[in-house]
Amino acid sequence: MTTVQGTLTLRTVEGDGLHFDAQFPAGTIALDSGPHCVAPNPVLHLLASLAACEGMDVISLMRKKRQKVTAYDVLMSAERALEHPRRYTSITLVHRLTGTGLSRAAVEDALRLTVEKYCSVYHCLRPDLKITNEIELIEG
Amino acid sequence: MTTVQGTLTLRTVEGDGLHFDAQFPAGTIALDSGPHCVAPNPVLHLLASLAACEGMDVISLMRKKRQKVTAYDVLMSAERALEHPRRYTSITLVHRLTGTGLSRAAVEDALRLTVEKYCSVYHCLRPDLKITNEIELIEG
Repeated sequence: MTTVQGTLTLRTVEGDGLHFDAQFPAGTIALDSGPHCVAPNPVLHLLASLAACEGMDVISLMRKKRQKVTAYDVLMSAERALEHPRRYTSITLVHRLTGTGLSRAAVEDALRLTVEKYCSVYHCLRPDLKITNEIELIEG
Repeated sequence: MTTVQGTLTLRTVEGDGLHFDAQFPAGTIALDSGPHCVAPNPVLHLLASLAACEGMDVISLMRKKRQKVTAYDVLMSAERALEHPRRYTSITLVHRLTGTGLSRAAVEDALRLTVEKYCSVYHCLRPDLKITNEIELIEG
């Protein structure tokens, strides 16, 4: 086991604001919600954490495979239930990789390893949350 | 259903960096990993998103209950497995509320409602991830 620690602090003590800062040795994360929010809300942070966790594994594996990636975006979309607790019911991540002569098989293999073996965030989510990963390759 | 969308972009295309930015209408989230990281990694974002999601619900409920909170921190700690995918196995959140004459029963009720009904992030996590919520009250 390894232990992770940090402190979350409410910044908007007065009024009805919901601005929190989470402080870790690696930096501070701002989270907010509501009509006048100054930062993304917690469910957006969850979506970003899944996409980036997968993305870090995929780009690391592509580099090991000597694939020359010149740009990498992940288009994130997710559906939330209307009823409380308004949880995600499905998430779709489109991995859009740009490069010269990228191998689709290499990306598929990287994504498979990521999902099956490496992605810490993916494996923290409930199994009935449907996560779909797609691949889009652009030559350039 | 409501739909959430955003784009994650790799900033460190050259070299072996893992810096990604997630862009949403509400703002940008920076995520990074490794020895020279400039932002917290995805699993820290996941931990912050859970703590802040609970925290936003708890402070909203405490305000509705006319409880006068003058400071609110959540002490976050979590255990990760050593083996891939190195997922969280347990998370402990200590809700430290400061205020004048705060009612422990009011905080307990707010936390119970948060976990059972409101917290979107909590309900996205796998059921065997053990989440413990504790309450610490400080007069002042």
